[in-house]
Amino acid sequence: MSPFTGSAARTPRWEHLSVDVTDAVATVTLARPAKLNALTFGAYADLRDLLAELSRERSARALVLTGEGGGFCSGGDVDEIIGATLAMDTAQLLDFNRMTGQVVRAVREAPFPVIAAVHGVAAGAGAVLALAADFRIADPSARFAFLFTRVGLSGGDMGAAYLLPRVVGLGHATRLLMLGEPVRAPEAERIGLISQLTEAGDADETALALARRLAGGPALAYAQTKALLTAELDMPLAAAVELDAATQALLMTGADYREFHAAFTQKRAPKWEGR
Amino acid sequence: MSPFTGSAARTPRWEHLSVDVTDAVATVTLARPAKLNALTFGAYADLRDLLAELSRERSARALVLTGEGGGFCSGGDVDEIIGATLAMDTAQLLDFNRMTGQVVRAVREAPFPVIAAVHGVAAGAGAVLALAADFRIADPSARFAFLFTRVGLSGGDMGAAYLLPRVVGLGHATRLLMLGEPVRAPEAERIGLISQLTEAGDADETALALARRLAGGPALAYAQTKALLTAELDMPLAAAVELDAATQALLMTGADYREFHAAFTQKRAPKWEGR
Amino acid sequence: MSPFTGSAARTPRWEHLSVDVTDAVATVTLARPAKLNALTFGAYADLRDLLAELSRERSARALVLTGEGGGFCSGGDVDEIIGATLAMDTAQLLDFNRMTGQVVRAVREAPFPVIAAVHGVAAGAGAVLALAADFRIADPSARFAFLFTRVGLSGGDMGAAYLLPRVVGLGHATRLLMLGEPVRAPEAERIGLISQLTEAGDADETALALARRLAGGPALAYAQTKALLTAELDMPLAAAVELDAATQALLMTGADYREFHAAFTQKRAPKWEGR
Repeated sequence: MSPFTGSAARTPRWEHLSVDVTDAVATVTLARPAKLNALTFGAYADLRDLLAELSRERSARALVLTGEGGGFCSGGDVDEIIGATLAMDTAQLLDFNRMTGQVVRAVREAPFPVIAAVHGVAAGAGAVLALAADFRIADPSARFAFLFTRVGLSGGDMGAAYLLPRVVGLGHATRLLMLGEPVRAPEAERIGLISQLTEAGDADETALALARRLAGGPALAYAQTKALLTAELDMPLAAAVELDAATQALLMTGADYREFHAAFTQKRAPKWEGR
Repeated sequence: MSPFTGSAARTPRWEHLSVDVTDAVATVTLARPAKLNALTFGAYADLRDLLAELSRERSARALVLTGEGGGFCSGGDVDEIIGATLAMDTAQLLDFNRMTGQVVRAVREAPFPVIAAVHGVAAGAGAVLALAADFRIADPSARFAFLFTRVGLSGGDMGAAYLLPRVVGLGHATRLLMLGEPVRAPEAERIGLISQLTEAGDADETALALARRLAGGPALAYAQTKALLTAELDMPLAAAVELDAATQALLMTGADYREFHAAFTQKRAPKWEGR
Repeated sequence: MSPFTGSAARTPRWEHLSVDVTDAVATVTLARPAKLNALTFGAYADLRDLLAELSRERSARALVLTGEGGGFCSGGDVDEIIGATLAMDTAQLLDFNRMTGQVVRAVREAPFPVIAAVHGVAAGAGAVLALAADFRIADPSARFAFLFTRVGLSGGDMGAAYLLPRVVGLGHATRLLMLGEPVRAPEAERIGLISQLTEAGDADETALALARRLAGGPALAYAQTKALLTAELDMPLAAAVELDAATQALLMTGADYREFHAAFTQKRAPKWEGR
């Protein structure tokens, strides 16, 4: 628990997600398998609020996002989201689309790495959730589809037109966002959309192992690495170099840097404190 | 025709390009095959003005740029451009180079997707024209060469030093712009420089089919996807997410989004209006 | 020698590097093979100062950075750097990290191409030095490891969190900087981290040949290509196009552009002056 805790209550139960935090690893499961984990307003809101809560609590040092059943996430529910938005007024439409964007910002700005474990379909908002993660661990069944134009909307949804060109380059990103065609695991690996391709059925296990390694390691160093990667996409070189210098000077006063040197000198493995 | 039409005349005839607009698909052909479609001052100016005219008229929903004869475009003509610029004064040199840059900006800012159909050589300014397009459909004969340094000029011509690193990464871009060596189709595919590799001789046909699909589909969604991809290269994450939210809220009030839901509910294909 | 030379003395001897300048090609060798060319405070300082001196003198038109013995550079010395920084105060820690960042900025901002010739290990700061270069010529023994988190520090060191996503994309960059795992030559080639893969043992020779070609060619055109690539990563499209136009107009008044046209007309090879 962070000392910077005020009056805000801890949410006793997440109604629209399955959440587990064990040994500083949060596992968040989209758990609506009968609908391929299609997202509802409640699921978006819970993702937004859960990430905010974990970020201020500091109870998690790594997070795995996964889907139950036959796929990762089929995106916004056709009835509960598309149908519902057709009845909304201007202010509500903006509120909804800001909320979904806030989820992506919360993933990118969380002070811990986020690992998407992808099997089967990751479509629409599901593809963008995976895209926003720091790692995409996928098995051969994974297929990504940014299918927004297929429903008459812009391919730039939830930051996708910002993130995807920075992950796979502008050429591939244009093709994927404009056409909405599925990208299967081999192509996803080839163009840099996935971080690691596993054997069939192993995405969850591999993602969890990575999360445990990150949570048990120099977690502050990992968190800062993520923070700098996120921030420096938006900074000029000179400013980025200065941010790196200040961050590194700070971490050189930390316990884990000192511990590395002691362990190296004593020819033993470091015992990371994550601070 | 857009309601936002004033007094500006429609150009009756493009002297330096072959232009056809059929069923909202513009086909622009560089038609100087005896010189591998080497560009002249007139061709640059016509490209700049044609793109402006199509953008304000809204008569085209997709554009194919192709070359007649043995190649796509061999770049600026050695006699008619390089020779002529040697006699120019400072103001004329700046005017010329601003005009070529305006062509690239017009391609990136056009409110419709631009598809380059590339066979044979795409060299110098020809390579940059293809680079500025949203899609590069190439057949195995395609070879790209950013050969500016070979004539004693900077590899950063017409925005190439901005665009190429964002398409293929800084490492490949440095190599291609600095050395000016040809990149053949297999490498171009591997590094993400082309969007789709076709069978020999099929680039034009494939590009036209894509243009027809885009023009006949949810064209406003495609146009906005392009606009966001272009704009968000220059925006920080938070601003990009906000732009996505506002754009998506707007498109959710559009005819095509409503039509998608109706078609889905009625288990039929959507009839897109492009608005 | 540049006419813009003042009172600053030329360094008579670089104590921590081996430096040779022949025919406008500077070869800088990290020459501490018993320690795999681990960097010391003196080596960083010499790199910073040498690059500044070469940049103001204009004696070099290309620079090769290489390592003597079994590898390119194993990064900061565990004893002489990590151990020493543990005893430093806040101001010294910041000074040290700013110095290392200044080396990267000096590489990116040098008015000549920098070619890293990599064999064996390029780890930690050694990997970032190679990353900052314009070309990475590597042989099959090369392995890159951004192992900062392995010592409890941020993966964003010396601008790595800025540069690496722009070279290999955000997905690969996150994995490499977060986990610090080695990237061997085949993967480095696949993801765009190296510019050219040579036969075993040929990295130095290939790098030197490239440097000679660059130094003997239209060197001002190469220098401006580099400058634009560096600057335009941090610029919006419209500004980049304007910068390209002004730069190209300038180079069109230069000797090499004129010489290209004369040589082309006379059907002979150009004699480049580099201006």
